[in-house]
Formats: sequence, structure tokens, C-alpha cells
Amino acid sequence: MTLRLTLLICFMNLSLFAQTDDDAFFVKEIYDYTLENSLCYDWLTILSEVIGGRLSGSFAAETSVKYTYHIMSSLALDAVSKQECSVPVWQRGDYEMVKVIDDTSGNEFVLNATTLGNSLGTNEIGVKAPIVEVHSLDELKELGEDEIKGKIVFFNRPMNNTYVNTFRAYGSAVDQRASGPSVASKLGAVGTIVRSMTTKLDDIPHTGVTVFEPDDNMIPAMAISTNDAEKLASMLPNPSISLYMQNSARILENQLSHNVIGEITGSQYPDEIILVGGHLDSWDIGGGAHDDGAGCVHALQVMATLKALNYKPKRTIRCVMFMNEENGLSGGKTYADKSNQNSEYHMAAIESDAGGFSPRGFGVGGTADAIKTKFPNVREWMDILSPYGIGISPGGGGADINPLKSQGGLLFGLRPDSQRYFDYHHTALDKIAAVNKRELSLGAAAMTSLVFLLDKYGLGTR
Amino acid sequence: MTLRLTLLICFMNLSLFAQTDDDAFFVKEIYDYTLENSLCYDWLTILSEVIGGRLSGSFAAETSVKYTYHIMSSLALDAVSKQECSVPVWQRGDYEMVKVIDDTSGNEFVLNATTLGNSLGTNEIGVKAPIVEVHSLDELKELGEDEIKGKIVFFNRPMNNTYVNTFRAYGSAVDQRASGPSVASKLGAVGTIVRSMTTKLDDIPHTGVTVFEPDDNMIPAMAISTNDAEKLASMLPNPSISLYMQNSARILENQLSHNVIGEITGSQYPDEIILVGGHLDSWDIGGGAHDDGAGCVHALQVMATLKALNYKPKRTIRCVMFMNEENGLSGGKTYADKSNQNSEYHMAAIESDAGGFSPRGFGVGGTADAIKTKFPNVREWMDILSPYGIGISPGGGGADINPLKSQGGLLFGLRPDSQRYFDYHHTALDKIAAVNKRELSLGAAAMTSLVFLLDKYGLGTR
Repeated sequence: MTLRLTLLICFMNLSLFAQTDDDAFFVKEIYDYTLENSLCYDWLTILSEVIGGRLSGSFAAETSVKYTYHIMSSLALDAVSKQECSVPVWQRGDYEMVKVIDDTSGNEFVLNATTLGNSLGTNEIGVKAPIVEVHSLDELKELGEDEIKGKIVFFNRPMNNTYVNTFRAYGSAVDQRASGPSVASKLGAVGTIVRSMTTKLDDIPHTGVTVFEPDDNMIPAMAISTNDAEKLASMLPNPSISLYMQNSARILENQLSHNVIGEITGSQYPDEIILVGGHLDSWDIGGGAHDDGAGCVHALQVMATLKALNYKPKRTIRCVMFMNEENGLSGGKTYADKSNQNSEYHMAAIESDAGGFSPRGFGVGGTADAIKTKFPNVREWMDILSPYGIGISPGGGGADINPLKSQGGLLFGLRPDSQRYFDYHHTALDKIAAVNKRELSLGAAAMTSLVFLLDKYGLGTR
Repeated sequence: MTLRLTLLICFMNLSLFAQTDDDAFFVKEIYDYTLENSLCYDWLTILSEVIGGRLSGSFAAETSVKYTYHIMSSLALDAVSKQECSVPVWQRGDYEMVKVIDDTSGNEFVLNATTLGNSLGTNEIGVKAPIVEVHSLDELKELGEDEIKGKIVFFNRPMNNTYVNTFRAYGSAVDQRASGPSVASKLGAVGTIVRSMTTKLDDIPHTGVTVFEPDDNMIPAMAISTNDAEKLASMLPNPSISLYMQNSARILENQLSHNVIGEITGSQYPDEIILVGGHLDSWDIGGGAHDDGAGCVHALQVMATLKALNYKPKRTIRCVMFMNEENGLSGGKTYADKSNQNSEYHMAAIESDAGGFSPRGFGVGGTADAIKTKFPNVREWMDILSPYGIGISPGGGGADINPLKSQGGLLFGLRPDSQRYFDYHHTALDKIAAVNKRELSLGAAAMTSLVFLLDKYGLGTR
């Protein structure tokens, strides 16, 4: 993050352009309007509580497509459409259980558990096997087939709590969930359980996707709460202890779903697109409030605020609700493919997929040099945004917009404060009660302000 | 806040002193230790849940004196003491009620209400009178005695939601609560009700202090929830509607209480004191978790972390738990008086009294010029603290430490993110459930880091 300061130092100076006051005034209008009149919290309440968890291929996901299409239509945008994409359909089913069994005493206790997306389902008898605890994929590979075959692998490396940015802590541990079951299956494991991805010690299990390779012999893969992971680890190694896993997950045929797209067409440079977006789909066990209903309503609110303030953009402002970020990225890939086929140019894309918490700025994708070249006006922008606690630092983008990188524009990610994100992420607690209305609205205001500046000034070089 | 950028521009440059890397390394040690090992959340749980609301003169307040004295003693500081101060004793008593009565229909409904600190109690019959709604002290004064005498004044100006800093929004409205009842009493009002000080529309009443002048004819003063304020306003004006107020508040004799003080004596400049503190007392209806248990445990954690890392300060680091911030400031005033009598010099004082939310930096009291003179090292400090999202901006201090201003040191206030503060402030919701452990710990780490830098480098001029 020291780079951020370096950027500040390089780009800032005391000479301000004449129009800066006007820009600051309009940004204040954006903030005032959003804090007083935004509908994003109400929209998010519908998305997360009425519609609920929206896993790709579910009835709820399709309802969310219709609901956000309805919102965009109500905003009198210049065009609103749905874009077909084919999504995988994984269903959790009705039951899931993990328990520890002491074969000597016959004692057993049930763990707080949730099945991971793409997990194989067990039959009704379930799977019972000895446990091997590991803390990394390397440790697993070193143990090798002899130690792993016929066993259940227990991944138990905690997230690194000393990282101030919790996304970095997530990145330090999530390989266990994403790739662990695949690697374990190659070594003959009959199942895997993963310590939940959270900085907290609590009883809440966190789901999320795991990825098997095409030739893998798929196995059941489930997550347990951090408290239970600690408890289980304290009992190991013990030859009389084994683990029992049962779940009713199943994979159905791919299904057609949709991205939802709305735009205000630019008056001067309609071919220069500024995209705002989030992903509609969410995990099924919560309401997908922070992940990523918040991002969806942030993007919708950008459009609503620009319309309400009667702003006529020079460039095309496009709002995209992406489908299937959680388990496939089909929406983001489809969108980029079609965009490339149509020779479109996304001058900038801003994704909000880090929660509805108090915003601290934007990350921007690319090298400091590239950002400098693209950003002739950044010194004034920083001066305009910093009173709202908004900075711009290197490292941006988002899973859904990253496929647009080849078009050469800038990719931004909204950066809310990250401390609470993994208290809720992929859990039953990701509900509207975990969202503060002002914090959510401020994210929308920050995005609208950046869109305004990008639209008004464009980038330095194309 | 543009001034903040100006400061950045003035003070930052690219030449870093050789010791900066060492400093950054120690700050990282502070953060790592605090995030992994801090006890502040556990201490706050005891303060806010076991001991609970700690209004000056209450049993709970005295228990909190003993508890924090116990914590300081356990930290093996060089000195721990209690400092006597005389505190006012206001008690809420057992009952409080506000209801609206329609004298024509006989209908009545009860409002969500709480008595303000220093309110006069009513007798058991209560007070019933016509209502006059006003939105400012000026409006009230213009109405004058003819319109006000014998009536209940209803202050209903909302906090300004468009201010991003909610403390500014609080400042824009709190004169109604702090001074409104006094002004109303001078005009012959028989009671006052005040719209609760919060940016939210909800059913939660917010208490807080109101101040009568010595010659005032004290009257009952209570706050109602924002939803009820809106509802009541929608019924006015209506000559058949009157308001009924009842509460059992009483004021007892002043009582002796204590500040709690602990210090690590400086090895080279023991006469240069760096103070960290918060206030022990809180309103009675909640647990005083954010206000200001968080500030107390922040300050205690600074001492614990310095001890745990075996840091030997050059200057004296003093931790103060102030008593009676909420309704009198007796602790802060007494502390400064004794300090001045002893010719002490507080080179710096840092108060945490803005909640236990994710920290965004420090405000520092004084002019930009004074800060520049005092802060020869601020360019490196900013570089060290900014990776943790910590800035330093003008405008600091705190109610308890402001009386130390005449000693000529710098007064800092910790600045947590303010969006959620007034969801809880002075309500029954200000409990540990509203506090996130990582956010709380990060505040302590930020304060410890600033103490370390202040201790190592001192100030530019005395």
C-alpha cells in the first residue's frame, strides 16, 4: 500500500483546474442525493430477504433477474436487456451432516457444517473414514497416496489474522477450499472437510466453491466452523476417531440464465463504455446481502442517481448484473465474449464485490505507470474524493469484469472496509441485518462520483 | 478535509530516513501482536455486559474504577493510582413515560422515550400540557413567553443526514438536547421532549445530558425516538392533542469518585508525558460499549501491548480512565488541575471517544502551522501509518483531554469510521454485540503505533 502514497505524491500538486470547484459541487450533489434518497437499501432488502439466496440455476436466481430487470426498466434508461448465458446447476439438497465418531467409546458429536459448491453428494449411508489433518496442499502432496487413500482429508490452516486487509487473509487460506478437494481426490481420499474461511472463531460454517478438474474422481467436500475445526484438531491424531460425512448435493444439467444490462447512451462518445456492476447470484444458505446483493444495488443506484440528477453522460454508462460469479463466471465470460465480438471498448469498468461496508476507496488494475498514463486528472480527482474518505490505490478489478482487461481500459474495484466481511461471507448470516444503510449508500455515492469523473474527463490515452 | 490533503502535500516527500524501515517493522509488530493477542475485546465484554451502564456515582461506575485499576495493576506498570474527583449524581429511577393524549377522543399512545440526564423528575401525577413543536432555539425564542408558558416544547430538527461525518451531523442538532430545555424553561415551559440524536429512523430513544443554568427553573426533559418524533409531528398542530410526561429522575448529593491512572515512566525524558485515555462513565440505559468502554480498553491495550513487546519508552506513557465525561467532565477537569499544579507537561494526549469501529486515523488539535512546527517527522509517520489506513488530519482532542491544551502539547482524537456510531450512541443498544473484535483491536493498534512514534521522536519544538 506504500505505492498508494507514492501515487499521491506523484500526482498531486497544488494547482487546481478551474472546473474543480464545479466538479466538487456535483460530487456533493451526488452524495447529498444518495444519502437522502437512495433506494439501494430497500432494493437489497427485497433481493436478500424476499428473494433470498440466489445460486445459479435456482428459482431465486431467475427471480432476481426479473426483479433487477424491473428496476432498470423503472429507471427510464435508454436500453434494458437480458443476455443469455449457460450456467452450471449444483443443488445442495435437503440434508447435510458431518460428525466425529469415536469407534472405541461409540461417542459421536455433530459438527457445524455446510456442503461446498460442486461437492459430490453421498448416498444415504454417507461416508465414514479415518481423518488426516493437513495445513497446506504441499503437506498433503508430501503425505502422498499411501497416507491419504481411503481417508478423509481435513484442511485446517487458519486465515492469517495479522493481515489488516481481510481479503489478503482470505487469499492466504482459500486454496484449501478451492483446490484442496481436487488434490485430495487425486490421492485417493474419500472426502474432504475444510476449516471455514473466516477470521473469527465461531460456530458458523462458510460454504463456497470447490473446483474439480475434468479427470478428477469427485468426492464429498464440506466446510466446518472454525470452533469445530479447533475442537477436532485437538482430538487428533487418534486412531479410534473417524469422521462421518453425508450430504444430498447433486449436479443437474446446465441451464440458461441471464445477465441483466441497462445503459444510458453517451451523447458525445457513445462507443466509450463505463461499466458498473455486481453479481446477482449468491450462495444459497444466506441472503447474499453483502455478497453480492450490495454490489448489484450499488450499480443500480449509480444509474438511479445519474437519472435523478438529470445528468446527461458524454460516454455510455452501462450497468450489468452478472450471473454465476460464485460457481463458474459464466456471466462475466459471456459478457466479455459478446463485447469483444461487437468490438466494444470498455474505457472503464467498476465492480463492487467486496460488501456493502463503509467505502475506503477504489483499487485500480494495472501498473502505477499505466494508471499514471491513463489518469491525467487524478490529482484533481483525489482532491475531490478525499473529503469523502475515498482514495484510489493500485490493484483493482473484479472477477466479472477482469475478462474485459484485453480491451485496454481501466478496471476498478470498490474497496469497502474489510474487517467484517468474513464474519458473513458465504454464511447464513449474510442477511440485510448485517448491512448498514448509510454505509451501503456511501458505496453507491462513491461509485457514482467516480463514474461522473470518468465520464466528464475520459482517460489520457486510449 | 481538503486541509488534510494540503498537509499531506506539504509534509510528504520521497526522501525517507534510514530509521523508517525499523519504525515500520516495529509498527507491524504492534499490529501483529494486537490482532493476534489483544485482550481489549474481553475487557470490553466485562465492562459493558458484566458491569454494564456506568453513570457517575453509580455502583457500576465504582465497579469499573476497581476493574480497570485491577487491569492496570496486572500489567506491571511503574505506577497505578486512583485520583479523587467529585461527581454529580443524577439517577433515572424506576419509571419513565411519554404519551400523546387526544383530549377530544380520549385516545392515547405511548412513545418510545428516555429521560435526559439532569432532567427534573415529575411527581407521580406527571405533567400534561399542550405541545409546541420547534426546530431551533431561535424559533423557540421568537415564539417567546406568550406562546410557550405552560406548554411542553417539542424539539424536532433532525440530524443532517447528508454530512458524511456523522459527528458533524450530531453537532448540527445537539444544541436542542443540550440547551433546549434550559431555554424553554426560561420561557415558562413545563417540560420538553427532544427528537433523538441519530441519523436513523427507528424506535430507539437516545438519552444524553441536558444542561440547566444555575438560575433556571428546572423542568422535565425527555427524548423520544425518531419514528415517534415523525409520527407526533404529523399530528400537529392540533389543539385537542396534549402530551403527558412522567419520570422518576432525581439528583442526589455530589459523591467522590475516581479517575484511574497508570504509567510507564520514561527512561530519558520522564517529564514529557504522552497520555492515552477514554472515559469510564457511560449512560445507564446501555452498556457503554462504544461510548466509551471502547476508548478505555483501547488505552489499556496500548499499555498492555507496549509491555508485551518489552518496549522501554523514553518518555512517560500514561493511561487515564476519566470519570464523569457524560455529565460534568469532573474527571478531565480534576486531572488537568492537578497536572497544572504539578507543573506537568503533556507533550501529547490521545483520547479515544468516538467508538470502537474501524479506525481511519487521528485528528490533531491546533492550526496546520502549529502541527507543522510540532511534527518534523510527520512525513515518515504518514508513510508508516498509511498502509494501515491511518491518516492524520487537523481537528483533534477530546472532551477529557482538552483541558490540557494550555500545556502546549498536541491533542489527538482517534477517528474511527463514524457511520454506525449514532445507531447506538446513548441507547440500550450500545452493547458488546455492536462491537467487532478486529475493528476494536485495530483502534488499539493505531493508538499504540502513534504513541510509539511520539515517544521515539518527540515533537519538534516544545
